[in-house]
Amino acid sequence: MAQRSQAHIALGAAVRDLRARRGISQEALAEISGMHRTYLGGIERGHRNPSFTNIRKLADALDVRTSELLLRAEELESGDEREVGTDPPRT
Amino acid sequence: MAQRSQAHIALGAAVRDLRARRGISQEALAEISGMHRTYLGGIERGHRNPSFTNIRKLADALDVRTSELLLRAEELESGDEREVGTDPPRT
Repeated sequence: MAQRSQAHIALGAAVRDLRARRGISQEALAEISGMHRTYLGGIERGHRNPSFTNIRKLADALDVRTSELLLRAEELESGDEREVGTDPPRT
Repeated sequence: MAQRSQAHIALGAAVRDLRARRGISQEALAEISGMHRTYLGGIERGHRNPSFTNIRKLADALDVRTSELLLRAEELESGDEREVGTDPPRT
Protein backbone atom coordinates (compact mmCIF):
# COMPACT_ATOMS: atom_id res chain seq x y z
CA MET A 1 0.00 0.00 0.00
CA ALA A 2 1.33 3.40 -0.95
CA GLN A 3 2.39 6.01 1.55
CA ARG A 4 -0.37 8.52 2.06
CA SER A 5 1.32 11.79 2.98
CA GLN A 6 4.14 13.28 4.98
CA ALA A 7 1.62 13.79 7.78
CA HIS A 8 0.76 10.08 7.80
CA ILE A 9 4.44 9.19 7.83
CA ALA A 10 4.99 11.58 10.73
CA LEU A 11 2.03 10.17 12.66
CA GLY A 12 3.44 6.69 12.20
CA ALA A 13 6.89 7.85 13.29
CA ALA A 14 5.39 9.45 16.40
CA VAL A 15 3.63 6.18 17.29
CA ARG A 16 6.81 4.19 16.72
CA ASP A 17 8.91 6.66 18.70
CA LEU A 18 6.56 6.64 21.70
CA ARG A 19 6.30 2.86 21.53
CA ALA A 20 10.10 2.57 21.61
CA ARG A 21 10.26 4.95 24.58
CA ARG A 22 7.77 2.73 26.39
CA GLY A 23 9.95 -0.24 25.54
CA ILE A 24 7.12 -2.29 24.04
CA SER A 25 7.02 -4.31 20.87
CA GLN A 26 4.72 -3.68 17.94
CA GLU A 27 2.95 -6.90 18.88
CA ALA A 28 2.38 -5.73 22.45
CA LEU A 29 1.08 -2.32 21.38
CA ALA A 30 -1.23 -4.00 18.88
CA GLU A 31 -2.63 -6.21 21.62
CA ILE A 32 -3.05 -3.35 24.12
CA SER A 33 -4.77 -1.15 21.55
CA GLY A 34 -6.90 -3.95 20.15
CA MET A 35 -5.70 -3.90 16.57
CA HIS A 36 -3.96 -6.36 14.32
CA ARG A 37 -0.16 -6.17 14.33
CA THR A 38 0.08 -5.82 10.55
CA TYR A 39 -2.45 -2.97 10.62
CA LEU A 40 -0.38 -1.23 13.31
CA GLY A 41 2.72 -1.83 11.17
CA GLY A 42 0.96 -0.08 8.29
CA ILE A 43 0.13 2.88 10.51
CA GLU A 44 3.74 3.11 11.74
CA ARG A 45 4.98 3.17 8.14
CA GLY A 46 2.46 5.83 7.14
CA HIS A 47 0.64 3.49 4.78
CA ARG A 48 -2.67 3.48 6.66
CA ASN A 49 -5.17 6.22 7.30
CA PRO A 50 -6.43 5.46 10.82
CA SER A 51 -9.79 6.63 12.07
CA PHE A 52 -10.23 8.92 15.05
CA THR A 53 -11.20 5.85 17.11
CA ASN A 54 -7.97 4.04 16.24
CA ILE A 55 -5.81 7.13 16.80
CA ARG A 56 -7.39 7.41 20.26
CA LYS A 57 -6.80 3.73 21.00
CA LEU A 58 -3.12 4.13 20.14
CA ALA A 59 -2.76 7.30 22.22
CA ASP A 60 -4.45 5.61 25.18
CA ALA A 61 -2.21 2.56 24.87
CA LEU A 62 0.85 4.84 24.69
CA ASP A 63 -0.40 6.78 27.72
CA VAL A 64 -0.58 10.17 26.01
CA ARG A 65 -3.48 12.38 25.06
CA THR A 66 -4.51 12.26 21.42
CA SER A 67 -3.54 15.92 21.03
CA GLU A 68 -0.06 15.15 22.35
CA LEU A 69 0.41 12.29 19.89
CA LEU A 70 -0.60 14.63 17.06
CA LEU A 71 1.67 17.38 18.37
CA ARG A 72 4.62 14.99 18.33
CA ALA A 73 3.74 14.02 14.77
CA GLU A 74 3.62 17.70 13.75
CA GLU A 75 7.00 18.31 15.35
CA LEU A 76 8.47 15.35 13.49
CA GLU A 77 6.88 16.54 10.24
CA SER A 78 8.23 20.07 10.49
CA GLY A 79 11.44 19.43 12.37
CA ASP A 80 14.06 16.74 12.31
CA GLU A 81 13.52 15.09 8.94
CA ARG A 82 15.98 12.31 9.74
CA GLU A 83 13.52 10.95 12.27
CA VAL A 84 10.61 10.84 9.87
CA GLY A 85 9.80 7.92 7.65
CA THR A 86 13.02 6.04 8.11
CA ASP A 87 13.29 2.92 10.15
CA PRO A 88 16.34 2.82 12.39
CA PRO A 89 18.96 0.37 11.18
CA ARG A 90 18.56 -3.06 12.72
CA THR A 91 21.89 -4.13 14.11
CA MET B 1 -26.47 6.74 12.88
CA ALA B 2 -25.69 6.33 16.55
CA GLN B 3 -23.34 8.55 18.46
CA ARG B 4 -19.97 6.90 18.77
CA SER B 5 -18.46 8.17 22.01
CA GLN B 6 -18.07 11.23 24.18
CA ALA B 7 -14.77 11.85 22.41
CA HIS B 8 -16.49 11.87 19.00
CA ILE B 9 -19.15 14.23 20.32
CA ALA B 10 -16.43 16.50 21.71
CA LEU B 11 -14.50 16.45 18.42
CA GLY B 12 -17.66 17.44 16.59
CA ALA B 13 -18.35 20.19 19.10
CA ALA B 14 -14.81 21.52 18.67
CA VAL B 15 -15.27 21.62 14.89
CA ARG B 16 -18.63 23.36 15.21
CA ASP B 17 -17.27 25.83 17.77
CA LEU B 18 -14.26 26.78 15.62
CA ARG B 19 -16.48 27.03 12.55
CA ALA B 20 -18.80 29.42 14.40
CA ARG B 21 -15.83 31.52 15.54
CA ARG B 22 -14.71 31.75 11.91
CA GLY B 23 -18.23 32.83 11.00
CA ILE B 24 -18.64 30.26 8.25
CA SER B 25 -21.55 27.97 7.49
CA GLN B 26 -21.45 24.18 7.52
CA GLU B 27 -21.85 24.33 3.75
CA ALA B 28 -18.85 26.63 3.38
CA LEU B 29 -16.64 24.52 5.64
CA ALA B 30 -17.69 21.40 3.74
CA GLU B 31 -16.69 23.04 0.48
CA ILE B 32 -13.35 24.33 1.80
CA SER B 33 -12.44 20.97 3.30
CA GLY B 34 -13.66 18.98 0.31
CA MET B 35 -16.30 16.88 2.01
CA HIS B 36 -20.05 16.51 1.65
CA ARG B 37 -22.12 18.78 3.90
CA THR B 38 -24.13 15.90 5.36
CA TYR B 39 -20.91 14.04 6.18
CA LEU B 40 -19.58 17.14 7.94
CA GLY B 41 -22.90 17.41 9.77
CA GLY B 42 -22.44 13.84 10.98
CA ILE B 43 -18.95 14.66 12.23
CA GLU B 44 -20.23 17.76 14.06
CA ARG B 45 -22.90 15.66 15.79
CA GLY B 46 -20.38 12.98 16.78
CA HIS B 47 -22.04 10.36 14.59
CA ARG B 48 -19.09 9.86 12.25
CA ASN B 49 -15.64 8.47 12.85
CA PRO B 50 -13.44 10.59 10.57
CA SER B 51 -10.09 9.39 9.29
CA PHE B 52 -6.82 11.15 10.02
CA THR B 53 -6.97 12.61 6.49
CA ASN B 54 -10.40 14.13 7.10
CA ILE B 55 -9.49 15.43 10.57
CA ARG B 56 -6.50 17.17 8.95
CA LYS B 57 -8.65 18.63 6.17
CA LEU B 58 -11.02 20.11 8.75
CA ALA B 59 -8.17 21.50 10.87
CA ASP B 60 -6.57 23.06 7.77
CA ALA B 61 -9.88 24.59 6.71
CA LEU B 62 -10.38 25.96 10.24
CA ASP B 63 -6.82 27.33 10.24
CA VAL B 64 -5.62 25.38 13.28
CA ARG B 65 -3.15 22.58 13.69
CA THR B 66 -4.63 19.11 14.04
CA SER B 67 -3.20 18.86 17.55
CA GLU B 68 -4.96 22.10 18.49
CA LEU B 69 -8.30 20.86 17.19
CA LEU B 70 -7.88 17.69 19.27
CA LEU B 71 -6.81 19.69 22.31
CA ARG B 72 -9.98 21.78 22.06
CA ALA B 73 -12.01 18.58 21.82
CA GLU B 74 -10.30 17.18 24.92
CA GLU B 75 -11.00 20.39 26.81
CA LEU B 76 -14.67 20.23 25.82
CA GLU B 77 -14.83 16.55 26.79
CA SER B 78 -13.33 17.06 30.25
CA GLY B 79 -14.59 20.54 30.98
CA ASP B 80 -17.73 22.47 30.27
CA GLU B 81 -20.30 19.75 29.63
CA ARG B 82 -22.95 22.25 28.60
CA GLU B 83 -20.98 22.96 25.44
CA VAL B 84 -20.67 19.34 24.44
CA GLY B 85 -23.15 17.46 22.30
CA THR B 86 -25.93 20.00 22.42
CA ASP B 87 -26.90 22.10 19.48
CA PRO B 88 -27.61 25.70 20.33
CA PRO B 89 -31.29 26.56 20.12
CA ARG B 90 -32.32 27.88 16.73
CA THR B 91 -34.21 31.09 17.26
